[in-house]
Amino acid sequence: MLRWVDGRPGETLSSLDRGLAYGDGLFETIAVCHARPRLLEYHLQRLADGCRRLSIPLDAKLLRAELLAFTGELGEGVAKLIVTRGDAGRGYAPPAEAEPRRLLLGSPWPSYPDANATQGIELFPCATRLAEQPLLAGLKHLNRLEQVIARGEWQDPRFAEGLMRDLSGRVVEGVFSNLFLVRQGRLITADLGRCGVAGVMRRWLLEQAAARQIAVEIRDIDYAELFRADELFLCNSLYGIWPVCRLDRHDWPVGALTRKLQGILRTLLDF
Amino acid sequence: MLRWVDGRPGETLSSLDRGLAYGDGLFETIAVCHARPRLLEYHLQRLADGCRRLSIPLDAKLLRAELLAFTGELGEGVAKLIVTRGDAGRGYAPPAEAEPRRLLLGSPWPSYPDANATQGIELFPCATRLAEQPLLAGLKHLNRLEQVIARGEWQDPRFAEGLMRDLSGRVVEGVFSNLFLVRQGRLITADLGRCGVAGVMRRWLLEQAAARQIAVEIRDIDYAELFRADELFLCNSLYGIWPVCRLDRHDWPVGALTRKLQGILRTLLDF
Repeated sequence: MLRWVDGRPGETLSSLDRGLAYGDGLFETIAVCHARPRLLEYHLQRLADGCRRLSIPLDAKLLRAELLAFTGELGEGVAKLIVTRGDAGRGYAPPAEAEPRRLLLGSPWPSYPDANATQGIELFPCATRLAEQPLLAGLKHLNRLEQVIARGEWQDPRFAEGLMRDLSGRVVEGVFSNLFLVRQGRLITADLGRCGVAGVMRRWLLEQAAARQIAVEIRDIDYAELFRADELFLCNSLYGIWPVCRLDRHDWPVGALTRKLQGILRTLLDF
Repeated sequence: MLRWVDGRPGETLSSLDRGLAYGDGLFETIAVCHARPRLLEYHLQRLADGCRRLSIPLDAKLLRAELLAFTGELGEGVAKLIVTRGDAGRGYAPPAEAEPRRLLLGSPWPSYPDANATQGIELFPCATRLAEQPLLAGLKHLNRLEQVIARGEWQDPRFAEGLMRDLSGRVVEGVFSNLFLVRQGRLITADLGRCGVAGVMRRWLLEQAAARQIAVEIRDIDYAELFRADELFLCNSLYGIWPVCRLDRHDWPVGALTRKLQGILRTLLDF
């Protein structure tokens, strides 16, 4: 598949890159349909926010141009964008004059079963807990060992995703998705101030809900509360929305609000 | 400087490497003197332990041979060894048949002032706190954004190192060192069960202390306790031992036990 490094076709990078040495960088996983990146502004805004928080001096205009050229060539599939602080010598100190590196990796569209979206999925209850680190919370940074360990907990394909809680037991997200609860017509999703990734689809859905007078609560969620929810669903920018129909011997129907949001996604984003 | 990839001279790696994508790997920073890696067995044992904990199937014999050949060629300086889970396609799931990648990066000996070891250093009190994650605690893994942020907090060369505490305020370590307190002839260092890197020099010193009937306590340390210590020092495998002579407007003398341990280091490890 198509791969670029710093705006040109290429498949390798220097072994001195700080993305490798320290996970010193950020990434975005972007759906590409008809040669266009879906939710482009949301991805670019999150990346810019991450660069600001990590003091990575990114040229946003250059990056946008590279991404559009890349997705134009890719046509259909997934574009993974990695931005690192670039090369440096030994030591953690961020160089005063960093030259960020941009990597673009194309891959085919993932082969998720249609039933994930239509009938819902079973969620694996991961034992791996997310550490609380407000300085990194919300960012899609390259320090993802917690997700690697969590995803390694199950091989059974019956589970399409895993539920992650923080070290205090609060419900946070899926391994590669955000989670929403529906309770009495209200949408509830975890506050991501301590840990978790602020997904672009989560943001899009929150904005859609606000525009439609659907009440939203962003707050801490304890595990027991999941089992009092009327509906549960996951979302991310590649698959859209998957209803959760089973977790920990509890079953949920695919609910009306979940269906409604899937409909909005279909209409507005061509899912 | 000398750089190898998978046992051969090389300076680049695939942009599909999971070390880059997720920080899915480990590293060791090894002092090389007279063409030999110092504390070799300690480094290899920590790396093997890390691979076991992360389920990275490393060929330990091959790695040892590569490292010895590399340090033989390097002669003098620092050999940084990075082991990643190797290349993979999209997704966090660790591949069933991973082929770990080995990177070796040579660099010249760091130019620390002699006074750091003889007169002691001033410690910067970092505001960046370490998250608590028992699954990763102790490991020298590639998820090091906390250290990058912490080291970015100060530029004033007056501070040779920074002090890191955990989110609960406990004293843990330096940004690139472990910390010891001396109180009434006893050595005290942080328990690294929740966060922190279990340095090879820390281990070596703990073993030397045990062999010499110096009492040792490995336990939680609160910040106020630092200021009741008779001596404070930092250690790592490159510089050995640096006394801490100043932190947060408090001064310490270079103490007798610190000097004694520096002497043992000089005698046994040629520091």
